[in-house]
Order: sequence, then structure tokens, then C-alpha cells
Amino acid sequence: MSPPPAAGSLIQPLPDAFDAEVFDALLDGGKFRLLRIVSNGQATPEGQWLDQDDDEWVLLVAGAAMLLIEGEETGRGMVPGDWLLLPAHCRHRVDWTDPDQPTVWLALHRDAG
Amino acid sequence: MSPPPAAGSLIQPLPDAFDAEVFDALLDGGKFRLLRIVSNGQATPEGQWLDQDDDEWVLLVAGAAMLLIEGEETGRGMVPGDWLLLPAHCRHRVDWTDPDQPTVWLALHRDAG
Repeated sequence: MSPPPAAGSLIQPLPDAFDAEVFDALLDGGKFRLLRIVSNGQATPEGQWLDQDDDEWVLLVAGAAMLLIEGEETGRGMVPGDWLLLPAHCRHRVDWTDPDQPTVWLALHRDAG
Repeated sequence: MSPPPAAGSLIQPLPDAFDAEVFDALLDGGKFRLLRIVSNGQATPEGQWLDQDDDEWVLLVAGAAMLLIEGEETGRGMVPGDWLLLPAHCRHRVDWTDPDQPTVWLALHRDAG
């Protein structure tokens, strides 16, 4: 008999993320890493871009956010259920997360190439 | 400039899954596969167990379900946000999914190490 499977909830309970975003590793697959990110109104600092060496598939689980992709004129509003695949070095920034509720992300990072 | 990132929603629109569950591949990472599953009241046939060669991390995105793990006396009720890591060959069955609404799963299959 295998041991009982690990289990949990992405949204209950939530950590206090008022001071800073909270990152929790969920699964490591060698070539990928699955994690939950909880934001509370945080955004990428003005004028900065996020530029990653790996591909990131990101799902908005709860809350609301606005993402900006370099070269795109309008931001991408994200509501629960929305996902985005950010290829490595696709420069982007989190322009806004809802300050009035926690925003929960599920992020799957995949080694590029 | 990289091409615009692929994007979508796990819950809007939803396919018609009344006749059978609908599987949509989302991402393939060589060592893992990410997919969405939409159920509409389907369950594992009576007396059958699911037994997989790979590990499966599964998240209930919307709807409601009851999972049964072999050897456990009570089922595991799953509501949105709940996840479960099913190691390879952890025999389980989907005992029930809500017949009154679509149940949306996100499943990450990882090659067993």
C-alpha cells in the first residue's frame, strides 16, 4: 500500500502577504517547479521588467491582477481561471494586484529549451 | 521581441462535457504534462480503480468532487483550491463529481522517478 497522498488547498488557509509576496514550493520535477504565490497588492517596481531564464505557465487562482507584456500597448487583466504562458525572456511586469483581497497564483516553471 | 505569450482561461468558455469528460493538453515539458479535465457528473465506474504509471498533482479549479483512495475509509471531498498529489500506482477513484455544475480539474502528470 502506498503512503497516503499529500494534499492541501491553494486558498485555505492563506498566509499573511501584506508585507511581501509569499512563495510556497508545491512540487519539484527536476525539469519543472510548481509553486503558489500569494500577493496582497504588490506589483513590480515602476520601470522594472521581469526577465526569466525559464518558461512560466501562470494561472490566476483567486483575486485579480493586471500584467503588462513588453511591446504590448494594453495590459492583460487576469481574473480567476485565466492563465498565461510566458516564454523565457518574455519581459513582463505585474502592473497591479488587487489591494483589497489576496491574489493567488499557481506558477509552473519549466526549464527552457 | 518574443512572440506574444499564449493565454486562455480554464473556466471560460467551458466545453460541453455532458456525454464524456473533456481532456485538453495545456503544456508538455518532456518530463511532465499539464492538462485540464472537465467533468459533468462523471465518476470512475463502480468497482474500478485508477492506477497510473506517473505521479499526478491534481487541483480542483471549479465544481466539487469526492475522491476515494484505496485503503482509506472515508472519501476526500474536494472543493475549489484543493489539491492532491497522487504518487504513481496510488490506486484511487473519482467517486462523485457534482452533476449540477461542471467540475474543472488541472492535472500535472510527472514521470515517476
